[in-house]
Amino acid sequence: MTATAPPRKLRIAISGLGRMGKRHALTYVGRASRADVVAAFTPEASEAAWASSNLPGVKIYSDYDAMLAHPGLEAVVISTATSVHAEQAIKSINKGLHTMCEKPLSIHIDEAQKVVDAAATRPKSQKILCGFSRRFDASYRDAAQRIDSGSIGRPSVFRSQTCDKLDPSGFFVAYAEFSGGIFVDCSIHDIDLALWFFGPESRVKSVSAVGVCAAQPALRQHQDVDNAVGVVEFWEDRIAYFYASRTMAAGQHDMSEIVGTEGKLIVNGNPQTNLLEISDKTGYRREVPPDYYGRFGEAFATEANEFTAACLDDTPLPFKLTGAVRALQIGAALQESLRSGKKIHFDEVGHRVEKATL
Amino acid sequence: MTATAPPRKLRIAISGLGRMGKRHALTYVGRASRADVVAAFTPEASEAAWASSNLPGVKIYSDYDAMLAHPGLEAVVISTATSVHAEQAIKSINKGLHTMCEKPLSIHIDEAQKVVDAAATRPKSQKILCGFSRRFDASYRDAAQRIDSGSIGRPSVFRSQTCDKLDPSGFFVAYAEFSGGIFVDCSIHDIDLALWFFGPESRVKSVSAVGVCAAQPALRQHQDVDNAVGVVEFWEDRIAYFYASRTMAAGQHDMSEIVGTEGKLIVNGNPQTNLLEISDKTGYRREVPPDYYGRFGEAFATEANEFTAACLDDTPLPFKLTGAVRALQIGAALQESLRSGKKIHFDEVGHRVEKATL
Amino acid sequence: MTATAPPRKLRIAISGLGRMGKRHALTYVGRASRADVVAAFTPEASEAAWASSNLPGVKIYSDYDAMLAHPGLEAVVISTATSVHAEQAIKSINKGLHTMCEKPLSIHIDEAQKVVDAAATRPKSQKILCGFSRRFDASYRDAAQRIDSGSIGRPSVFRSQTCDKLDPSGFFVAYAEFSGGIFVDCSIHDIDLALWFFGPESRVKSVSAVGVCAAQPALRQHQDVDNAVGVVEFWEDRIAYFYASRTMAAGQHDMSEIVGTEGKLIVNGNPQTNLLEISDKTGYRREVPPDYYGRFGEAFATEANEFTAACLDDTPLPFKLTGAVRALQIGAALQESLRSGKKIHFDEVGHRVEKATL
Amino acid sequence: MTATAPPRKLRIAISGLGRMGKRHALTYVGRASRADVVAAFTPEASEAAWASSNLPGVKIYSDYDAMLAHPGLEAVVISTATSVHAEQAIKSINKGLHTMCEKPLSIHIDEAQKVVDAAATRPKSQKILCGFSRRFDASYRDAAQRIDSGSIGRPSVFRSQTCDKLDPSGFFVAYAEFSGGIFVDCSIHDIDLALWFFGPESRVKSVSAVGVCAAQPALRQHQDVDNAVGVVEFWEDRIAYFYASRTMAAGQHDMSEIVGTEGKLIVNGNPQTNLLEISDKTGYRREVPPDYYGRFGEAFATEANEFTAACLDDTPLPFKLTGAVRALQIGAALQESLRSGKKIHFDEVGHRVEKATL
Repeated sequence: MTATAPPRKLRIAISGLGRMGKRHALTYVGRASRADVVAAFTPEASEAAWASSNLPGVKIYSDYDAMLAHPGLEAVVISTATSVHAEQAIKSINKGLHTMCEKPLSIHIDEAQKVVDAAATRPKSQKILCGFSRRFDASYRDAAQRIDSGSIGRPSVFRSQTCDKLDPSGFFVAYAEFSGGIFVDCSIHDIDLALWFFGPESRVKSVSAVGVCAAQPALRQHQDVDNAVGVVEFWEDRIAYFYASRTMAAGQHDMSEIVGTEGKLIVNGNPQTNLLEISDKTGYRREVPPDYYGRFGEAFATEANEFTAACLDDTPLPFKLTGAVRALQIGAALQESLRSGKKIHFDEVGHRVEKATL
Repeated sequence: MTATAPPRKLRIAISGLGRMGKRHALTYVGRASRADVVAAFTPEASEAAWASSNLPGVKIYSDYDAMLAHPGLEAVVISTATSVHAEQAIKSINKGLHTMCEKPLSIHIDEAQKVVDAAATRPKSQKILCGFSRRFDASYRDAAQRIDSGSIGRPSVFRSQTCDKLDPSGFFVAYAEFSGGIFVDCSIHDIDLALWFFGPESRVKSVSAVGVCAAQPALRQHQDVDNAVGVVEFWEDRIAYFYASRTMAAGQHDMSEIVGTEGKLIVNGNPQTNLLEISDKTGYRREVPPDYYGRFGEAFATEANEFTAACLDDTPLPFKLTGAVRALQIGAALQESLRSGKKIHFDEVGHRVEKATL
Repeated sequence: MTATAPPRKLRIAISGLGRMGKRHALTYVGRASRADVVAAFTPEASEAAWASSNLPGVKIYSDYDAMLAHPGLEAVVISTATSVHAEQAIKSINKGLHTMCEKPLSIHIDEAQKVVDAAATRPKSQKILCGFSRRFDASYRDAAQRIDSGSIGRPSVFRSQTCDKLDPSGFFVAYAEFSGGIFVDCSIHDIDLALWFFGPESRVKSVSAVGVCAAQPALRQHQDVDNAVGVVEFWEDRIAYFYASRTMAAGQHDMSEIVGTEGKLIVNGNPQTNLLEISDKTGYRREVPPDYYGRFGEAFATEANEFTAACLDDTPLPFKLTGAVRALQIGAALQESLRSGKKIHFDEVGHRVEKATL
Repeated sequence: MTATAPPRKLRIAISGLGRMGKRHALTYVGRASRADVVAAFTPEASEAAWASSNLPGVKIYSDYDAMLAHPGLEAVVISTATSVHAEQAIKSINKGLHTMCEKPLSIHIDEAQKVVDAAATRPKSQKILCGFSRRFDASYRDAAQRIDSGSIGRPSVFRSQTCDKLDPSGFFVAYAEFSGGIFVDCSIHDIDLALWFFGPESRVKSVSAVGVCAAQPALRQHQDVDNAVGVVEFWEDRIAYFYASRTMAAGQHDMSEIVGTEGKLIVNGNPQTNLLEISDKTGYRREVPPDYYGRFGEAFATEANEFTAACLDDTPLPFKLTGAVRALQIGAALQESLRSGKKIHFDEVGHRVEKATL
């Protein structure tokens, strides 16, 4: 009839309460039992009002620095606009706070590198995470484990796609101005997966990309497209190829296929909202999630819980921050190739070379 | 820069820390943010030891009545052995506590009815729930919603199965002594689903059942089987048929199919552990969960959260307690038919009749 | 630069050119290269006209006996109305012709038995086949081979369904007058499969059946239903259960599941017209065949070729004629149980017993 | 009681009785009822011996020209080694015979063009077909029809793969010496499909390709690979991307996906041998065909029947011969890009340009 002391909780703040920020806030409040959301930052009155109703007990700041000074704060989740990710992350890191920053750290490689540099100066017990949500997805983890155990032999070819439902509202057109382009915004996840499954030290030999505006010609004004294919060749005799789209009719379809010399793994080859199948005059069908949150909602909860646990228990995070810059470099190169129409070549130590001169 | 008051939490206790009790405890501790597990009951020293390590801050009682007297306790989750479900539930109900009792309330119809009777004397604001976990499963809810909206016309035929992985340890043989039989233990879920989709007032016209011991002949000593088929005919021109098995090779396969006059819904027709597909020399395959918790873990979390919310906010529970007795009645009739080999008939007002005399 | 003699062809006649007869005729003409369709019988002028256009070189008779006397005729395919199957088959058999008779031989057990009796008097080199088309289906054969090789252990539970698309024209209502009922007409295939997978000598212990008119109440005038579930218990500790329907929204869905002690085989669990999947606003879907011919067209071609080969080469047919009567007996018992509402019991040597007296 | 005259049959010869030739011969003999195989050519004694046993009544020639002179011959199927396709086809065409030539017409573009040129001089009633078997596949035809009817909007992105099972015998290494490379040998089918779905007049803007030797390093001696990815950009704002592999563990997996602005079509996304699913300790799985004939056997039969009908009835063939040269041009450009590592650009009228100078 005795009881141990109740467990300590991580005092955490959410920066940004837009679409993604709201999701992070609700996940940490409702599904991360070891975390205590104590503060949040938003400059938007409407978002602050939302917080009053939906985040009881959470102090809302309209100033990021003030939020960082919240008494007893231990950790910050950054889900503001991409343009301030790096700046906010560096401030939080330098203040000694555990920091989870949404991807990408920045759309500029040098700025992203500054976050990594800031993190490098800190002790290991301060946890810094870039939010590649697929790393926390049960199916991708299952795949990774099987690859590690050698069950498909040597992984040689990786295909991966991030495909959004067509949004006729024009959202993606406006978004393209700041997104860094379809490869930096969407395929960055697929690139990160390639580095996961092929190894973080894989060296790029060439990248090339093509794209079209199939349904949203207005994207051309931002030199972007709504459907793109990119190919990355690695010096280790491996190939990754990516498809990104903003024009799916049914809904989100993010999937990956890893081909090894002795087998193949497919993650989400047949997308689904849940386990229901419907038969009617049109045949037998499954519906699919309307967006990436419908596909990866569980992964976000796992991310929240594992980040919290790592902060509280000083356990290692599942992957390193440095990969976020590597993924960005590859994404930016693909985007450049898309725009120039040229293939880009790299030598074995990572320097860019002109193929004509090889 | 203001914050609302932090939300109140439901003070809840877990009775029983066996296989299922541990799961309930961890779910309420880790995934039900509005609940505060303050106490638990177990007579087993090993389970108490487990609680010390895994349930920090929870007071462990070796006496059920003492646990009920825990200061400030508001709600109880009963997941002890089936034989004490009813007794514990009635005590908790009579003490004015919100009560969630694992299924079945009892394997004896009259005892189960006593729980319902006790609940009937209490105010609506005291929440009493029988834990039919599938009622909280997203896929089943999706199906129910489509049925309600008329998208498959009138539901006429319902097929549902609860199929466990073969457990060569002999667990199910020992368990059969107290389980009430395969229809009461397994098919009770499927029966409850039939009452959900056909309507709780559906009147049984006949039941019949057959079964075999395919892999575990020792079950015969408890007049039970490891594979059984049961058919329930309703006066409303509807049929439900059930398959229950303890001998699946791959893992858990619980599924349902609802045939309407204009379409058909299938829940979990193609079982899966996650979204990974594996291709190797044997073909293309998906693995399946090893047990029902692998299939319904999410549903248990939803159950915990919804029960908590109903208690705190005085909102209605998604289904009535009375159905638990009806499902038990049908399950017991199927089990009797299995044992006697005879079909059992009922008249339109529910009285049992001999077909020969009709 | 030599050539062997061209191969001899089987001179065959088609009796009946209705829906099924036309299919047999076209299959033998177009897809059975060792058969030469030389004659056909139909009493219908419209069918004879169809034959003139579609069966060039085939002599059309309006008298069955005259057709049997066609010079050089070696084999007959009987696909007339069920009511004359037995009579025509017996005539053909007695005339020494190879005979392929569509299922069922008759809806009357004694009449069907007469066909078997007639066949029993003939030499083995005269081939007599009852057209259970699923026996020639590649997927069912694959399943059978795996069962024979022991890959699923001992088969214990068999589920099988024959489900037709809803035909609002009233065809099935008119048809029910002569069909023998849904179990004799539809489930006979599933029963035959049970005898295939469980062994032709399996002894029935009990049968019971229930049914409803979900969409076609007019079937009641013929004591028939449009949705039925039947259960057959075997003395060898095996269960077969069947579902038959005339009300599918999407199309034909005939499927089977064989549960063994070490594995399970599923034939056509996910029906499909072909290998095309369609993704649009409604999700991801596959269409299904409109009728059984869309599902089993290939099997009919295999049947035609194997029957032809057996006749020409005196090779054994893949299954015995006697099973056709056994399947009919079980189908008729299910139909009786459906009508009476009573379960029917048999002792270990096949005699019917009253359960009350056991 | 009259009969029309028996139908006339097409007198056809098979040139080449290797792996593919045998298949064509058996298909025409057994599954093309309007064709009469009267002759065959093979220089190999073992193949001639096979023909004696398996092609009764067919005259076997060891000299191609002699076979062409077979009395009454009307049509030829060419399935010899690729290196003599063009020469044999031209001879047959010039002799006025209907000609079906296996793909590719040649691995040399100019030689392939000569076949097209020869065909261009002949009357329309002389049928000349290049054997792109997928054009005759029911699933691809279903897809094509849906595209034509506008059901997926404008097709914008096409993904297609030809993936062979790993053959550890070294067959593909030896074969690579004469195959023209993986894009010319395998992807030519996928390229032909792209031209089908995007339109035969689609103009290539760029091609690029990468490849690796994942399991068969010996392929490098022929400048070939066992896994390759190629991307083709069209001036009409369309992209086709291809994957070809010789290293699948499970078996053949040829599939395609056509993304339109309003939907998506997938052909063979989930490969299968037949409709059987197997559940055992490893999960739920389907096996896949060991080779392309297991996938496309039916298509070859359709091809045989449609070619025969076109010859006999002077009906149009389903696609033009000229596309065979276009597909070869694209395949050869991809193969060149694979070897050089360079992207290849074309202007709007089809001339090759250096991107640097654009």
